[in-house]
Amino acid sequence: MRVLVLGADGYLGWPTALHLSAAGHDVVAADSLIRRRWDRLCGTQSLVRIASMVRRVERWKRLTGRQIVWARIDLCHLPSITALVARYNPDAVVHFAEQRSAPYSMISGSHAVETQVNNVVGTLNLLFALRESAPDCHLVKLGTMGEYGTPNIDIEEGFIEIHHNDRSDRLPYPKQAGSFYHLSKVHDSHNIMFTCKAWGLRATDLNQGVVYGSGTAETDLHSQLRTRFDYDDIWGTVLNRFCAQAAVGYPLTVYGQGGQTRGFLDIRDTVRCVELAMLNPPKRSEFRVFNQFTEQFSVLQLAERVRAARTAHGLQTEVAHVPNPRTDAETHYYNAKHQRLLDLGLEPHGLDESLIDQVIGLVERNKSRIRKELFAPRVDWRRGGPTAMRASQSRRRFVTPRPAVTRRTPPAVRESKLA
Amino acid sequence: MRVLVLGADGYLGWPTALHLSAAGHDVVAADSLIRRRWDRLCGTQSLVRIASMVRRVERWKRLTGRQIVWARIDLCHLPSITALVARYNPDAVVHFAEQRSAPYSMISGSHAVETQVNNVVGTLNLLFALRESAPDCHLVKLGTMGEYGTPNIDIEEGFIEIHHNDRSDRLPYPKQAGSFYHLSKVHDSHNIMFTCKAWGLRATDLNQGVVYGSGTAETDLHSQLRTRFDYDDIWGTVLNRFCAQAAVGYPLTVYGQGGQTRGFLDIRDTVRCVELAMLNPPKRSEFRVFNQFTEQFSVLQLAERVRAARTAHGLQTEVAHVPNPRTDAETHYYNAKHQRLLDLGLEPHGLDESLIDQVIGLVERNKSRIRKELFAPRVDWRRGGPTAMRASQSRRRFVTPRPAVTRRTPPAVRESKLA
Repeated sequence: MRVLVLGADGYLGWPTALHLSAAGHDVVAADSLIRRRWDRLCGTQSLVRIASMVRRVERWKRLTGRQIVWARIDLCHLPSITALVARYNPDAVVHFAEQRSAPYSMISGSHAVETQVNNVVGTLNLLFALRESAPDCHLVKLGTMGEYGTPNIDIEEGFIEIHHNDRSDRLPYPKQAGSFYHLSKVHDSHNIMFTCKAWGLRATDLNQGVVYGSGTAETDLHSQLRTRFDYDDIWGTVLNRFCAQAAVGYPLTVYGQGGQTRGFLDIRDTVRCVELAMLNPPKRSEFRVFNQFTEQFSVLQLAERVRAARTAHGLQTEVAHVPNPRTDAETHYYNAKHQRLLDLGLEPHGLDESLIDQVIGLVERNKSRIRKELFAPRVDWRRGGPTAMRASQSRRRFVTPRPAVTRRTPPAVRESKLA
Repeated sequence: MRVLVLGADGYLGWPTALHLSAAGHDVVAADSLIRRRWDRLCGTQSLVRIASMVRRVERWKRLTGRQIVWARIDLCHLPSITALVARYNPDAVVHFAEQRSAPYSMISGSHAVETQVNNVVGTLNLLFALRESAPDCHLVKLGTMGEYGTPNIDIEEGFIEIHHNDRSDRLPYPKQAGSFYHLSKVHDSHNIMFTCKAWGLRATDLNQGVVYGSGTAETDLHSQLRTRFDYDDIWGTVLNRFCAQAAVGYPLTVYGQGGQTRGFLDIRDTVRCVELAMLNPPKRSEFRVFNQFTEQFSVLQLAERVRAARTAHGLQTEVAHVPNPRTDAETHYYNAKHQRLLDLGLEPHGLDESLIDQVIGLVERNKSRIRKELFAPRVDWRRGGPTAMRASQSRRRFVTPRPAVTRRTPPAVRESKLA
């Protein structure tokens, strides 16, 4: 299949591009490289050095003979994505190209706006490009399990049959997202669902859990093929952060009581799930949702798993409860369905000690690049970033993004009060 | 109460500002005046001449002695709205300041993006301004009944009790909006709901039906106090458009079979509903939803009402079924609850012949300003505006809005294909 991977420079986008190329698909890898700029703005960086996209695709070609076309484009520029889709006429588009950090989206009004504009506009542009040039193309969109929040009933895969006042209907599952980032994905889902109905597009929304792991068979082939690994408070996902903390003898920082339960999956399952969705497209006009995770854990359970893996090597690890910077419930019911990808043939990698050892090993080899001050949360859901940072070092400040919206209307407040 | 009315230059914003001022509240009326620019871009204009905001508030002061403070600000500029909220410290903010035309949002990718960015960013900025300077202020936000779509079960007011697999929860009512405009309001609702929970804001989302009518007691006081009246395909709501068509002997253009059923209300009830919501604020952290309409009609029923009103005067009116440019169902179940505003004391104006006569009278007095070519739909939901316009006059073209998103990342597609 011809496949366009958007967001191919990211933690998951790059391994997905490689995995699909290895599986024999013709891959066009596109990205604006904005994630590397966001790193500079946040004072963060990938624990492992990552090569440029040009070097990566060159190395892949040399090692495997497989060619990945690299295209630097900004999805927020409609003519660019329209031209790219028209040029390659893909069978599938895998769309990872979004700002994907919840804490980043909560730093300030500017960061919230940047996140929602970037994500919603990018997806809208893609939908228009598909309508224009490739209406038969299958959109494989990365959503998040965080769209659902933590309802007190079972979480279904995207839709729920509701019986009400002697009638019933299958309706979109209600959404209760817990950050401006998660909300941006809720907005995307609604927009995509509408265009499937109105324009006959076909789409799979992969509501993904929290991903852990340092790489895949393909990224492990060569140091220039590695994907990024984030361990900080802004970009690091929880298990990766715990492994980094354990590797350097730092306490595992659990937010609040740690009863927050979520779905998790191994990065090797992410790339396989995307491929399975791609190989089994929905019909035209269909908008379907797969919950993409393999196991549920509470944050405290994860910390205990990491501690146990260390204890097996005779190493002590402390678990520290720090004030929860977020506003989600710390104890709650959670039972989320995740059957549809299994039905398509997914064989999950469970979380085991050898994986934890492997991630910790990677961190240990890159120990010198760890900056421990990036472990502690800098962004408070209630007050944003700057307030939480008052007590901290100036070099940990965030740079405010340029305004995402510009208009000729004069921005200054002009008032006329009558005498 | 001190109240800030955002979008005070609009069809409903201006009458609301007047109504609240007449009721003794201290009103600050703010707007970017972008609606007047959109008229120029679409080749449309209000049937009745409308005075400038400066003239309007001067006239109101002269007639009643009441002062409305006028502020020209763009809600998409965060520092402006933050400064305005900080300066006036309102008890309530009534937020009408959005692009509110479904057809406009469906013209092209640029128009869809402009609509969602304008509406979502404006509301996000307002939420941050309230968190910063007026966390106790009551946000009264105009939503739309169109957020719900047409589910096959009763539509509740914002939330629904769901029983599922032996458990239950009260969850946000599932949303199935039918245009990028309606979707923008869905996005707003999710964003507002989150900030009520995370920051303790308080908000009322008024999911309003389709409004009809030419004015209120206050706008009828003087020609300089009139509110705009739209009869065209982009901005005109259906009953107002039918009245305009009837007044000039044009057939009433029903889209498809006309079975599309919606909630409707008189503009005099709009201003009263906003006031009732404002006078009865929710608790801190509460996000509540009122369905703001008074009667349900199908589009065909409305056309028949207008025809009947004309027949009573011995006048013939034709009803013409034109191809439906939209993608909503033409026959469907529809039963939407609208009890909460009645419980607060709303005394609805039902749709009667005298109202229809009055609106038709207004159109007749301004007959010379009617341009009949604006009656027919120019925007097709499946193909957008330009396609539908190929056969039409060049002066009916739309001007593409400037890009809503700018970024330093080079927009051009840069590709490196390896040899």
